[in-house]
Amino acid sequence: MTEPLRIGLAGLGTVGAGVARLLAANADLIAARAGREVRVVAVSARDRAKDRGVDLAGLAWEADPVALASRADVDLFVEAMGGESGPAKAATEAALARGAHVVTANKALLAHHEAAVAGGIPCVKALGEGLAGNRVARVMGVLNGTCNYILTRMEAEGLAYAEVLADAQRLGYAEADPSFDVGGTDAAHKLALLAALAFGTRVDFDGVMTEGIDKLSLADIAHAAELGFRIKLLGVARMQGEALEQRMRPCLVPAASPFGKLEGVTNMVVVEGDAVGRIVMEGPGAGGGPTASAIVADMIDIARGAHSPAFGVPAALLRAAPRAESGAPAAYYIRLALADRPGALGRVAAALGAVGVSIHRMVQSADEAEGGEATVLIVTHETTRERLDSALAVVAASDVSMGAPVAIRIEPV
Amino acid sequence: MTEPLRIGLAGLGTVGAGVARLLAANADLIAARAGREVRVVAVSARDRAKDRGVDLAGLAWEADPVALASRADVDLFVEAMGGESGPAKAATEAALARGAHVVTANKALLAHHEAAVAGGIPCVKALGEGLAGNRVARVMGVLNGTCNYILTRMEAEGLAYAEVLADAQRLGYAEADPSFDVGGTDAAHKLALLAALAFGTRVDFDGVMTEGIDKLSLADIAHAAELGFRIKLLGVARMQGEALEQRMRPCLVPAASPFGKLEGVTNMVVVEGDAVGRIVMEGPGAGGGPTASAIVADMIDIARGAHSPAFGVPAALLRAAPRAESGAPAAYYIRLALADRPGALGRVAAALGAVGVSIHRMVQSADEAEGGEATVLIVTHETTRERLDSALAVVAASDVSMGAPVAIRIEPV
Repeated sequence: MTEPLRIGLAGLGTVGAGVARLLAANADLIAARAGREVRVVAVSARDRAKDRGVDLAGLAWEADPVALASRADVDLFVEAMGGESGPAKAATEAALARGAHVVTANKALLAHHEAAVAGGIPCVKALGEGLAGNRVARVMGVLNGTCNYILTRMEAEGLAYAEVLADAQRLGYAEADPSFDVGGTDAAHKLALLAALAFGTRVDFDGVMTEGIDKLSLADIAHAAELGFRIKLLGVARMQGEALEQRMRPCLVPAASPFGKLEGVTNMVVVEGDAVGRIVMEGPGAGGGPTASAIVADMIDIARGAHSPAFGVPAALLRAAPRAESGAPAAYYIRLALADRPGALGRVAAALGAVGVSIHRMVQSADEAEGGEATVLIVTHETTRERLDSALAVVAASDVSMGAPVAIRIEPV
Repeated sequence: MTEPLRIGLAGLGTVGAGVARLLAANADLIAARAGREVRVVAVSARDRAKDRGVDLAGLAWEADPVALASRADVDLFVEAMGGESGPAKAATEAALARGAHVVTANKALLAHHEAAVAGGIPCVKALGEGLAGNRVARVMGVLNGTCNYILTRMEAEGLAYAEVLADAQRLGYAEADPSFDVGGTDAAHKLALLAALAFGTRVDFDGVMTEGIDKLSLADIAHAAELGFRIKLLGVARMQGEALEQRMRPCLVPAASPFGKLEGVTNMVVVEGDAVGRIVMEGPGAGGGPTASAIVADMIDIARGAHSPAFGVPAALLRAAPRAESGAPAAYYIRLALADRPGALGRVAAALGAVGVSIHRMVQSADEAEGGEATVLIVTHETTRERLDSALAVVAASDVSMGAPVAIRIEPV
């Protein structure tokens, strides 16, 4: 056995305390796999007195995380504070500046500043190493447990978004301010990291076309189910020639597909490689235990000197890819509120036909023809969003339209 | 860029030719991720003249794979010949003896001889590295595509085993001699490797309690479905204290579980770690592309000097675990053919009760009470196989029994 790998741990919240507890609980097997002891030597957190179920006896205490990151006896600095600027960034930079290793599961920090080492969901190692021989055609993911929990319950119980959100907040599955989750930002951060791993491109968080689940209507979730689909907040990244397409938006997926069968807070990543075919990975997307598991795995790699570049290739070799102007063509789900009178459907068909959008399936929803208004559901053949929007603008402006048309992409998965 | 990593490739069948094609097709991204060129310099195969869609121009040819493995200009020897002894073993040993790297996806060779580097399904890296901080409670897998294809079709189409097997052979999903697959041996090899990775124990292929799918009856598949289960050839490995339990046998799993939803030739691995929770991985289990993908990923790790020990810890540190004497307690599915007369069910209940096996659910199958014989299905509460067998022996010896009882474990997944 060589010298221990000495850890400086900044942050003792859910993630940080989870790391400390995991290192203590599995010290024997971690030492065997790392080839040496992995030992926390110094910590930093807001409140020294708080009981976190972690034994701090014998550990050095630093009130300032930058001071912790700068300690000569810290070989590896673990940033478990969170936040995309301020102390987390300053301390990470201090550690990197003196050549120390850094591990963080802080997606916000990674996406904005490209820190040196990525942690997090188990697919990172699969993409960066296990599938490194593959040219990836597409990487997709349901990457936010809160959103998938809300959508699952809306569909299963027929409850409105606001009602399920309030319940999720009571149960601790959603934050008091849920916008980072339900607005799609958290999931978009993760997608940007996966895209960099998959395609060797620079992390481009701002290039993710992002739309949350907060404006989804229960009606569309129910109608999608009638048609054999489910609605998921689905991230998709693919190359369009030299351009990188990144989307994190509600999509319809076939109910029988892996994404369609995904329930609750679980996350899922699907990678399509030219050699391996389709790989599906599913697991807990968040929480102290899973995140600590990912961080400790990185520590073990570093301890045995077998760590790979965070994004599969050295950061300097990541290409700056231009952003794709729009998503690849796809089929779309459309919901229209039309005047319930002869000729209304014909007007819609004509508007779609005029721009070359052809109809795969059209259903007049039986139970909603009331007050002279009919709900019409359409599944199109493959088209572009731009064509579709131009046709829907014509429909919306016509006298048969009784409400704003809804269009949601059907991702072929 | 440093010097190229020079590959000696032994075997140009499905796997070997797949490796050569993948290295050629993705040379640019492989070099970027490996930090240097990965170049085949010499090959060996049975027939030099055969067209395999691989350009052999400029490559050295060795008729003898041992000579290939011994070449001074080969940094990494890839064994893609197959077989657990003979040339594959001799050549691998020759390469290891002179300190060259070896990559092989030959499960038979690995399971029997513990070669230095493991390739194969994408879960190897997840278990050995990505989840290295976890104490694994249980690792499970559907690991043979041929078996899962046959079981899926038997259930979906109500066809008998022999009929589906013949079809699978016509379609190329099963070998002319299918015993290595349908007898469970191939899947047991893979389970033994996963167990070594998960628990840090020596590979113990002979310690896997193995039973194939060739004796499964269509009736049990259908009855299991009626009860909300599906039958899978499921591998399970777990520690019972210091002892290692390894089983590769047909099991009932809930139809709504990930294994229950797995269709066709796809493989699935589930890992339960103390920190991460449950991780599910799904992908193609065999074929030239997926296997080549795994081999090239190992090559890239070796090229960048970031390869980990094949089994998570150095082979010398793997513990020789004693074999568990039997499986952990579980619920069981029982099918009985009983005389259709008063008191028959009471005799069964008494025999089970006498050894402490309690009944969770009992169903007399309605459509089969003919000729004075009734089919009775029982789901027990948790018990041991030994207790159950002693009770079933009493039932079988009684005058109400009209045929041998069937008992299949229900694995809680």
